[in-house]
Amino acid sequence: MTAFSPSEAIASNSLPPVDSRQQASQFLKDLQDSICQALEQADGGAQFREDCWERLEGGGGRSRVIREGNVFEQGGVNFSEVWGETLPPSILVQRPEAAGHGFYATGTSMVLHPRNPYIPTVHLNYRYFEAGPVWWFGGGIDLTPYYPFVEDVVHFHCTLKQACDAHHAEYYPTFKLWCDEYFYLKHRQETRGVGGIFFDYQDGRGVLYHGPDTKGAAALHSNQIGNIGPRTWEQLFAFVKDCGNAFLPAYLPIIERRRSLEYGDRERNFQLYRRGRYVEFNLVYDRGTIFGLQTNGRTESILMSLPPLVRWEYGYQPEPNTREAELYETFLKPQDWVNWPL
Amino acid sequence: MTAFSPSEAIASNSLPPVDSRQQASQFLKDLQDSICQALEQADGGAQFREDCWERLEGGGGRSRVIREGNVFEQGGVNFSEVWGETLPPSILVQRPEAAGHGFYATGTSMVLHPRNPYIPTVHLNYRYFEAGPVWWFGGGIDLTPYYPFVEDVVHFHCTLKQACDAHHAEYYPTFKLWCDEYFYLKHRQETRGVGGIFFDYQDGRGVLYHGPDTKGAAALHSNQIGNIGPRTWEQLFAFVKDCGNAFLPAYLPIIERRRSLEYGDRERNFQLYRRGRYVEFNLVYDRGTIFGLQTNGRTESILMSLPPLVRWEYGYQPEPNTREAELYETFLKPQDWVNWPL
Repeated sequence: MTAFSPSEAIASNSLPPVDSRQQASQFLKDLQDSICQALEQADGGAQFREDCWERLEGGGGRSRVIREGNVFEQGGVNFSEVWGETLPPSILVQRPEAAGHGFYATGTSMVLHPRNPYIPTVHLNYRYFEAGPVWWFGGGIDLTPYYPFVEDVVHFHCTLKQACDAHHAEYYPTFKLWCDEYFYLKHRQETRGVGGIFFDYQDGRGVLYHGPDTKGAAALHSNQIGNIGPRTWEQLFAFVKDCGNAFLPAYLPIIERRRSLEYGDRERNFQLYRRGRYVEFNLVYDRGTIFGLQTNGRTESILMSLPPLVRWEYGYQPEPNTREAELYETFLKPQDWVNWPL
Repeated sequence: MTAFSPSEAIASNSLPPVDSRQQASQFLKDLQDSICQALEQADGGAQFREDCWERLEGGGGRSRVIREGNVFEQGGVNFSEVWGETLPPSILVQRPEAAGHGFYATGTSMVLHPRNPYIPTVHLNYRYFEAGPVWWFGGGIDLTPYYPFVEDVVHFHCTLKQACDAHHAEYYPTFKLWCDEYFYLKHRQETRGVGGIFFDYQDGRGVLYHGPDTKGAAALHSNQIGNIGPRTWEQLFAFVKDCGNAFLPAYLPIIERRRSLEYGDRERNFQLYRRGRYVEFNLVYDRGTIFGLQTNGRTESILMSLPPLVRWEYGYQPEPNTREAELYETFLKPQDWVNWPL
């Protein structure tokens, strides 16, 4: 691991503790463990298979995949920890003051593709980054339904809001907005799903968000959103932990409510078609994928997020007044889910 | 259409004729017609469905798709012609002297996904571009087999070589190399298929190729490859026409030889898995896709190249001494196909 003394941290950042990397990676490993254990129990059939791997330039990870279970057609939960002397270009664009320093990055990421089209696909990613005087947390959770139920979406968002609100009232609205903007397919003019929360570059300097990642999302915003004043490393870490731990209570009840619903070829075909959007987003827009490929990451782990079976169909349009049309009209646009009338 | 007088052409370029755009677009429309007619005949079942569309900023196209035929699970053949005041950023990177001019671009592109895994997927694209003093031709044809037969690959390459050799002996070797380099998946360390020919920026100034598009291809090269001296617009156009017309004799015999071969789940599953690489290439690397999305192109037409059904599988490795392993070991590396011993 490249040497980096936390005392180099610039004045406007809170100093991380001396064991910041250990604390972050330990939490992210524990998160992977607790998620995998709970998902195996929920699935009741398949178990995760683990591959441990090392990265030549420094670091490694443990990739876990579950396949052909009762609930999950495929799911991947990855932990990784990488370091090196040369910063990836995508980082330098965002934080030029990190130039010339070694870097350390650790993260846990997950994508689950259930077989039943009534159970949404879900994504989680939490990560921690250090390079010289620079450090930050990032991550989020978001939901991608095929045949959505409003109560599932509201439950999902309310659970995330509760976790956020315990730390600051600005977190949920700001990171919900960021999520809608980040997971936006410009070439389709659709959100990827019903969103959740997403954040990056949380370094304790107080400004939560510096404006849209993508143009074209519903609202226009000033460049600084949610200036809440300085936060310490410990405060942010506690927030990230609560967000990570909110995943299971946000998602497991949805599985239980929908796992026994019957479906036919129509629902299955639509699910496979919509999974194509997941592929388009991850390969064209996703920062995590680009970072992974740029840092010579482990391709199989990076692309584990891609669905097991996908369909593309030229010129598909949902028929009016169907559940498929409802997905496009209501759920693939940013909405105020926590205040949605049930 | 934005005004552009050919007399602005810079001295080192041959002047295009006054009707350059009409000549190019007429040929590309005729190419679409002749290809569609021959493919319908080869398929013997399905027919192309045509959508004509207009682009708000200028231009339009005709997208044709064939689905669920006897041979073709899905195939798209697009003609388009677009113009506008503002050059796409991807063009400016390559040719800064085009800045400040309106642009005109026309092209025909095609991707065919046969159902039988013994028939390769094939891609064709020919295009013509003008912006102020700048003009060029680009394009190519390449083959992506799943269960390749050496004689098919040799036939394909020899047919292309013959078309090239009629115009200049340097064309085939240079554009074959360029194809191997362009259709390379760095994150997989594989070529997309067995290649063919690919070229871009053919403006008659004499240098065929300015070095690799991607690092990591088999050979290292100097920056200038194939300096053949000036060519006129008419010479290049004649070359491009012959390349376009070489597609049917290069591909149709392969269909005829393989269309009756029986296959099972194993071959079908491997085909769907390998189609994932096609998606990865087109969404992560392909310049045509990026250009299309940047110019606010018609998404359905741009993404028509994506296969109808695709599979991803974490950690797949072919078993040693199988036909699947042979694909990786022999066919997904640049090879000297025209001199391959049969």
